[in-house]
Amino acid sequence: MNSFGLRFKFSTFGESHGRAIGCLLDGVPAGLEIDEEFIQGELDRRKPGQNEFSTARKESDKVEILSGVFEGVTSGTPIAMVIYNTDQKSKDYSNIKDIFRPGHADFTYFHKYGIRDYRGGGRSSARESAARVAAGAVAKLMLSKLGIDVQSGVLEIDGIRAKNLDFEAAKKSPIYSLDSSVDEAQQEAVLRAKNSHDSVGGVVRVVVKNAPASLGQPLYYKLDALLADAMMGINAAKAVEIGDGVLSSSLKGSQNNDEIRSSGFLSNHSGGILGGISNGEDIVLNVYFKPTPSIFKEQKTIDIHNNEVDFSLKGRHDPCVAIRGSIVCEAMAALVVADMLLLNMGSTIDGVVGYYKK
Amino acid sequence: MNSFGLRFKFSTFGESHGRAIGCLLDGVPAGLEIDEEFIQGELDRRKPGQNEFSTARKESDKVEILSGVFEGVTSGTPIAMVIYNTDQKSKDYSNIKDIFRPGHADFTYFHKYGIRDYRGGGRSSARESAARVAAGAVAKLMLSKLGIDVQSGVLEIDGIRAKNLDFEAAKKSPIYSLDSSVDEAQQEAVLRAKNSHDSVGGVVRVVVKNAPASLGQPLYYKLDALLADAMMGINAAKAVEIGDGVLSSSLKGSQNNDEIRSSGFLSNHSGGILGGISNGEDIVLNVYFKPTPSIFKEQKTIDIHNNEVDFSLKGRHDPCVAIRGSIVCEAMAALVVADMLLLNMGSTIDGVVGYYKK
Amino acid sequence: MNSFGLRFKFSTFGESHGRAIGCLLDGVPAGLEIDEEFIQGELDRRKPGQNEFSTARKESDKVEILSGVFEGVTSGTPIAMVIYNTDQKSKDYSNIKDIFRPGHADFTYFHKYGIRDYRGGGRSSARESAARVAAGAVAKLMLSKLGIDVQSGVLEIDGIRAKNLDFEAAKKSPIYSLDSSVDEAQQEAVLRAKNSHDSVGGVVRVVVKNAPASLGQPLYYKLDALLADAMMGINAAKAVEIGDGVLSSSLKGSQNNDEIRSSGFLSNHSGGILGGISNGEDIVLNVYFKPTPSIFKEQKTIDIHNNEVDFSLKGRHDPCVAIRGSIVCEAMAALVVADMLLLNMGSTIDGVVGYYKK
Amino acid sequence: MNSFGLRFKFSTFGESHGRAIGCLLDGVPAGLEIDEEFIQGELDRRKPGQNEFSTARKESDKVEILSGVFEGVTSGTPIAMVIYNTDQKSKDYSNIKDIFRPGHADFTYFHKYGIRDYRGGGRSSARESAARVAAGAVAKLMLSKLGIDVQSGVLEIDGIRAKNLDFEAAKKSPIYSLDSSVDEAQQEAVLRAKNSHDSVGGVVRVVVKNAPASLGQPLYYKLDALLADAMMGINAAKAVEIGDGVLSSSLKGSQNNDEIRSSGFLSNHSGGILGGISNGEDIVLNVYFKPTPSIFKEQKTIDIHNNEVDFSLKGRHDPCVAIRGSIVCEAMAALVVADMLLLNMGSTIDGVVGYYKK
Repeated sequence: MNSFGLRFKFSTFGESHGRAIGCLLDGVPAGLEIDEEFIQGELDRRKPGQNEFSTARKESDKVEILSGVFEGVTSGTPIAMVIYNTDQKSKDYSNIKDIFRPGHADFTYFHKYGIRDYRGGGRSSARESAARVAAGAVAKLMLSKLGIDVQSGVLEIDGIRAKNLDFEAAKKSPIYSLDSSVDEAQQEAVLRAKNSHDSVGGVVRVVVKNAPASLGQPLYYKLDALLADAMMGINAAKAVEIGDGVLSSSLKGSQNNDEIRSSGFLSNHSGGILGGISNGEDIVLNVYFKPTPSIFKEQKTIDIHNNEVDFSLKGRHDPCVAIRGSIVCEAMAALVVADMLLLNMGSTIDGVVGYYKK
Repeated sequence: MNSFGLRFKFSTFGESHGRAIGCLLDGVPAGLEIDEEFIQGELDRRKPGQNEFSTARKESDKVEILSGVFEGVTSGTPIAMVIYNTDQKSKDYSNIKDIFRPGHADFTYFHKYGIRDYRGGGRSSARESAARVAAGAVAKLMLSKLGIDVQSGVLEIDGIRAKNLDFEAAKKSPIYSLDSSVDEAQQEAVLRAKNSHDSVGGVVRVVVKNAPASLGQPLYYKLDALLADAMMGINAAKAVEIGDGVLSSSLKGSQNNDEIRSSGFLSNHSGGILGGISNGEDIVLNVYFKPTPSIFKEQKTIDIHNNEVDFSLKGRHDPCVAIRGSIVCEAMAALVVADMLLLNMGSTIDGVVGYYKK
Repeated sequence: MNSFGLRFKFSTFGESHGRAIGCLLDGVPAGLEIDEEFIQGELDRRKPGQNEFSTARKESDKVEILSGVFEGVTSGTPIAMVIYNTDQKSKDYSNIKDIFRPGHADFTYFHKYGIRDYRGGGRSSARESAARVAAGAVAKLMLSKLGIDVQSGVLEIDGIRAKNLDFEAAKKSPIYSLDSSVDEAQQEAVLRAKNSHDSVGGVVRVVVKNAPASLGQPLYYKLDALLADAMMGINAAKAVEIGDGVLSSSLKGSQNNDEIRSSGFLSNHSGGILGGISNGEDIVLNVYFKPTPSIFKEQKTIDIHNNEVDFSLKGRHDPCVAIRGSIVCEAMAALVVADMLLLNMGSTIDGVVGYYKK
Repeated sequence: MNSFGLRFKFSTFGESHGRAIGCLLDGVPAGLEIDEEFIQGELDRRKPGQNEFSTARKESDKVEILSGVFEGVTSGTPIAMVIYNTDQKSKDYSNIKDIFRPGHADFTYFHKYGIRDYRGGGRSSARESAARVAAGAVAKLMLSKLGIDVQSGVLEIDGIRAKNLDFEAAKKSPIYSLDSSVDEAQQEAVLRAKNSHDSVGGVVRVVVKNAPASLGQPLYYKLDALLADAMMGINAAKAVEIGDGVLSSSLKGSQNNDEIRSSGFLSNHSGGILGGISNGEDIVLNVYFKPTPSIFKEQKTIDIHNNEVDFSLKGRHDPCVAIRGSIVCEAMAALVVADMLLLNMGSTIDGVVGYYKK
């Protein structure tokens, strides 16, 4: 239940304030060069404490590879990666030891497991997403061998929406904003929420470029269904749409269909997926994040003994989870596509015979 | 790849114009009374040809149980159900034998499998969803033993949105409209699209009532992620949201958090799910359907030889797939919840010991 | 729990005296010609009622394909096959309705499911193996495209062991004996047991020829482990050995190691598998079957109310399950190898890039 | 492919001479007290370098728990355990860098992955089994809550077979011999092989006591099939038998059937499993190990360039892998039974309703 993928499969472990977090990758083809700097670079994009838009918790998020790589290349055996926690201050949480924070998983984990791991949310913390990013970096190394590129950025914050999307600009923006003309306004919205002890939601765009047609396994492992699964499983995600998504529900068929010419599709309302299988166009999706539930305003809640409590949270939190969330979305999309690439091998008998006869 | 679920698991088979469609259910607990009339009744809610809002194809969708039921109750062995196709007119499709219909899976299946099953879309047809409804009906029989109820209805068509949701009204509406005050306007929108040889999109609401807190397996089999997977995998679904979903991305934390009192949550913005686990409130989700891609207006496309073609589709199609889609959403939600109920058993050692010591 | 395989996956359904048995194959590559006569021929090899060495139950075991085949070739969609039961005489079992037959699964199914499907053992009957053979026949069609051949035969009955193995002779023998010089003696042993209202055990040999080196996924989906799983799961199998198996446990390393020359291995004690991966030699295994538990001698047992009963079974049974079991072993071996062939694709990054760049 | 189990699931990672080996346990119920000393004690039973019967490699096999345990009890989240390698001498292997050792996985891994990890066999080394033992120790902690006990010992070495089995004696024997009257003779056989630069095979017995009836999921996740899978997947295992196993293939039904009285079964030829489900009797199985392939006599082989080589292996190896293998068998049996216990929950609707209504 802590694993994702069927062929390019990863598992994660670790709690926010435990000894370490990490991941185990299984099914990575042998012979892939592992660029450790690239992996660390991906982790650095997500890591906290870099600026005023993220939590003040300082984690170097230094990744160590324990297995699966021999003389710089993958050996076909499982790749274990570990990130030790270094700046966990469990005492930050001593005042909420028995309290269920509104909007958090505290309540549900307690009901399910009978355990209250109050240290920063334990396993339910977004800290676990660092392990996803490490796994996703390996997926991206594989995708790059096939010319496939996965990109992400922040589309909208507090209702301020990017118009002209520029993924290169997003990489340089402190909030990964996709449009430099609204970047500053979005930054201000985040700080405004932060300064009023509140938080704000946002929307992330992910695009996969150059994926071949034929990815996705019908009918219960469709590309769009798996992307929805992957994205909705990210902390604070509350909606996912593919291509025109929500908008397409209010259109006519004649408006929404993508007509085809010999040179390709004339539009991409579908977001690159038809019948759950990629069609060769850009794969496009949006992920909607709720505002960070950890706010410093007083809120009504209960403790584990069902006593009512009015309390104000302390601690260190991101004012807008969508920002760093975009890096996690990108990693998960890479992992889904890598899995689909391997699963698609063997779709035709000619492909199978060709593979073994070569 | 044609299976869903880990413990309450189902697989489907069959093509639109093949001999039969059906499903195989594995993991249904033994001793459950099987009410065949109820199962047939669920299929009847989805079946085509009932009124002017669905395709003219007439299928009785009569289900036969081949195995797994002994003297009226489940025996713990797999339940195979089959529905023979009776009104398949493959010749309807002879004129599009080699043509990729815009918005359809024709193009992608051909690229993936090298096969063009032109007979009504073959496996990619929404006809397959009858098998999902049969499986879902068995799930609902199990859920009813625990007092859990799954409901659905049409929230919006052509931008006309229900205000006062009434799931009982939806059951009686020919378009499963959730609000009788907009039902007629929604019907007119569908017919307007149909009469202009076009189609229209829509939004479906699903609610699960009385589900216990603790359903959902973190971190990669979360309840919301699985529901997203299940819903996005339904034909023509392009977006899924949990609770306030899209809206929550433009809210502040103080607006979106659900505060808690000893009597329960004071609101349900979360849609009954926190950290991927149910919290005991209603589980609420919306599914956004694109307009039916099958329209009768002339469209630009290509054939399998990459020749450009301008063509007008013939055949029998729903003008709005969201309508019958709502029954499929309901079935899939029931299947997810049933799976989660079984998976949750064994979450605590006390639960395990109690189970075996009884 | 009624499915086997990860990529070339099959599920079975049906009870001995229910309406039908059948299987669902998922993951068969598209474009494979389906020779229905071949599939039926494989079923005919296993079917009962052919001679005095098997049960008198007469089943034509006529298989119908419901889906997944379009114009004679697989389409990449699930292949459902159904075999209707035609000669089920449930009344044969009325006298043992509440009795647990020694050596049978009656006792354990009742304890697990609370159900006593007395009709010929219900799901636990070896009748289900017809569905395995149908699935295995499709696997063999795929293997033949790669020149891989799976063979089986009876090695030993009642301690009478074949010396010179001849798989062609086995195909013609009424008891699938591998050695015509002991065939008659083995036949007599079976009839002797039958005439004394008893039964007899046996050993089956399976060989896979021309499988490429590299099949098997370490470390928990090894080729030998999966074959052991597949074989031990066959009704009445009680031991499985690979290559020299039991014998190798009493040898020295210098006797058991297979030395290697540039032209290949100098011996095949390993049975073609090293470290869980095929090495290109013949894959060789033996399956040990217990004697049929259904005997007509009086036996001591209890009923579902824990009353002690001395009873004599009636009905129609094979005097030696190993005979028809050999066909089932062959089918299961083919299914394992087919699964491994698909799983092995993607083991190297060069293989992946080559597949997509072609 | 490096994972085992469906509900009580574990994955392992690491190479013989890499940085670390370890395991990830997923699905352990929350609230289980974790006795770290017990876990370490289990590892100590398997660890090398303890006496003249095992390899001279000195590993403390000190296990560290990185996650999943909070305040001494499991929290329901994945348990990561790591064991750092401390005595890896890769230079031991420099002389066989390009050589395929007879009887080893070198040849097959190279063909599958295109990689020659010469350092002690890399992932294919039996060193990985330490991770299995760590995982198995957690399973045993869970089983002990239900009164279930798993025991193992060496039954036979070099044809010298134990007669009177005593599992307590086995715990104290340096070679885990089950019969103190043959212990010395077995020891001598091991040393004789060792001193002649050879190795010797052996047989391990495993017994599970007090397992409830009803464990095992028909038809493709049977208890015996899973045990066969688990055992055959252990390095050097070449045969597995349940109960009377091989012997039963030469018996009559009247000899092999276990008759039943109201007080229980009158014999246990079946090894406690009927129809793939436990019947409440002792679960009994034997695992046959080939002699260690690593011997110091000169052998014929080839290198990765297909050059023929006559060479004598150097390094540190067990003269009889069955000895320490017995601890691994015991761990794997515990893991299978733990998985089956969780899977069995939900077999009946009464069980499900009872679980949620409590």
